[in-house]
Amino acid sequence: METLHIELDKRSYAIYIDRNLLARLPGLLDPAESWAVITDEEVYGLYGKSLLENWRSDKVHAIVLPGGEEAKNLQTVGKVAGQMLDLGLTRRSGILALGGGVIGDVAGFCASVYMRGIRYVQVPTTLLAQVDSSVGGKTGVNLAQGKNIVGSFYQPQGVFIDTQTLRTLPRRHLISGLAEVIKYGVIYDYEFLTYLDSRLTDILNLKDDVLKEVIRRCCEIKAEVVVADEKEQGLRKILNCGHTVGHALEAATDYREYTHGEAVLVGMYAETLMAEELGLIDQRYCTEILALIGKTGMEFSLDSILGEKLVDHMMKDKKNRDSRISFILPRGRGETAEVLLTRQEAWGLLRKFMG
Amino acid sequence: METLHIELDKRSYAIYIDRNLLARLPGLLDPAESWAVITDEEVYGLYGKSLLENWRSDKVHAIVLPGGEEAKNLQTVGKVAGQMLDLGLTRRSGILALGGGVIGDVAGFCASVYMRGIRYVQVPTTLLAQVDSSVGGKTGVNLAQGKNIVGSFYQPQGVFIDTQTLRTLPRRHLISGLAEVIKYGVIYDYEFLTYLDSRLTDILNLKDDVLKEVIRRCCEIKAEVVVADEKEQGLRKILNCGHTVGHALEAATDYREYTHGEAVLVGMYAETLMAEELGLIDQRYCTEILALIGKTGMEFSLDSILGEKLVDHMMKDKKNRDSRISFILPRGRGETAEVLLTRQEAWGLLRKFMG
Repeated sequence: METLHIELDKRSYAIYIDRNLLARLPGLLDPAESWAVITDEEVYGLYGKSLLENWRSDKVHAIVLPGGEEAKNLQTVGKVAGQMLDLGLTRRSGILALGGGVIGDVAGFCASVYMRGIRYVQVPTTLLAQVDSSVGGKTGVNLAQGKNIVGSFYQPQGVFIDTQTLRTLPRRHLISGLAEVIKYGVIYDYEFLTYLDSRLTDILNLKDDVLKEVIRRCCEIKAEVVVADEKEQGLRKILNCGHTVGHALEAATDYREYTHGEAVLVGMYAETLMAEELGLIDQRYCTEILALIGKTGMEFSLDSILGEKLVDHMMKDKKNRDSRISFILPRGRGETAEVLLTRQEAWGLLRKFMG
Repeated sequence: METLHIELDKRSYAIYIDRNLLARLPGLLDPAESWAVITDEEVYGLYGKSLLENWRSDKVHAIVLPGGEEAKNLQTVGKVAGQMLDLGLTRRSGILALGGGVIGDVAGFCASVYMRGIRYVQVPTTLLAQVDSSVGGKTGVNLAQGKNIVGSFYQPQGVFIDTQTLRTLPRRHLISGLAEVIKYGVIYDYEFLTYLDSRLTDILNLKDDVLKEVIRRCCEIKAEVVVADEKEQGLRKILNCGHTVGHALEAATDYREYTHGEAVLVGMYAETLMAEELGLIDQRYCTEILALIGKTGMEFSLDSILGEKLVDHMMKDKKNRDSRISFILPRGRGETAEVLLTRQEAWGLLRKFMG
């Protein structure tokens, strides 16, 4: 079992990575008076049901949400908290978030506000959640007006990653997770980027020792960034590489055409081209990143991607300052720079590769 | 101007108490990119409108909620956050909570979750909010299933108390505030209790120097308790004196017959009698507390108060442990003890003074 320690004073916790961790989970948790396992219908069928059977406790309850981003809202939070109260969960109870990023975000937010905050653990079952959303303590739900507008910074007591769950993950979602994996190489660790380049086939074939190493290194990088800047005042911004274009792409297509990871992959592709155009990286490194993105197997063409409408959406980005759009672009190998561009400047650059 | 410093490491802040503070408020605040003044219809008419006129800034917006406890729910939080987003408020904006306890709780909760937390200040306009809910960083909203089930511990950047606002406060709400004022004497400071006894008429007549002194001492006591125990693990429990019976009384009457303060006053009356019955206080001290409660002018009789139904509600109290009801009872002058009683024990005691 791989174990990573996240040092955040009183809120320190560990990330455990191993195959078949789910079967051993009840024995690994700190004791709580009772637990609510929050999950979605699909993950409940795949893993939740057997987890609860295996647990053999009448103090463990499943709260099963409908799947997908639609459930990530304040109404769900109210319903979950109401159910928890009806089930008799107290301040000494805990929440176990079992699922992908949406479940982690909603369940983490519920934990942060139920009776003003109770303990919770993350058990992420998608690659994206395992390498990204389950680490760092960001929780949140969407409003009709925007994504993740309401949320909290709230650290879990532990993150338990079972690599075996990736075997039931649809290929499309595996590739989505790879977007964030590649991002860590781009923003923080060029050596990791070359490792990914040499092992991408193994990852896509779910070779377990490679998966464990990849997930471990991603969590390690994310943890280093988060520990240095828990509340996103500075360094944490680098995690947004690929996300300015990516978020705009998701919003411009009403969150229906691309998964978050797919949009980030396209975003990283476009932002790498922008970085080269601005002279932040050389052509050879640019080609290296684009080739790695290509190896994931996701097919897309920037030509047909929405054009100027995308820039309209970027203008609403939370990271913007003084009406300028914030991009986190690669600058040299394994590094990034924040570049602020006006609407005109951004579109002037992007139109070179977009239709 | 009276100033109290609350020492909570990075989250330290000050409480300012003065007459006509509202007129000087814009100049006293730390700068923020923009402000949302969250208030209710009545307080907006009395103070909000002129505050905004006086502020002379196009970066200050009023968000006016309907009055009363009904607005204290997650739907309101969603609406407020949506409005804030529409108004262009960012992570660098602030919330100013202008009103009584409900406004402070809702606005504080909105501040704690909007974009994962933005700064806020409390400007409490009722005696209850000034001496109790605005200090300590508890925020929250109600669910259909229970009060304050969803919330956070989130400290304001400052609390600004204008004693002048008490002049428009209905007598009934002044008495409600006095319930918490008297509570501080009972739980923490016998000398303050005797001071209150000698100055109760001055308080009811809104004599400004007495009001300032009373509010200052209450905030000081609350702050000492909160600093020692921010997350309610131990000492903070003493603030619940009078509240076990009080909360049950509110719940049993569907929150319609008693204000929170009135219920606490009745609760403190009943719990003082319980304490004497259990031998925790002598008869003389018991009479002293009961007489002070009587001096507020609130009229009630324990005979007719709901009987056993009350104990049913106490069984659902958040503070309960192992199915026993937690009471914070006076024990000697200016001190309390937590007493855990079974349903039968509690009713056996209470039925002696209740019908």
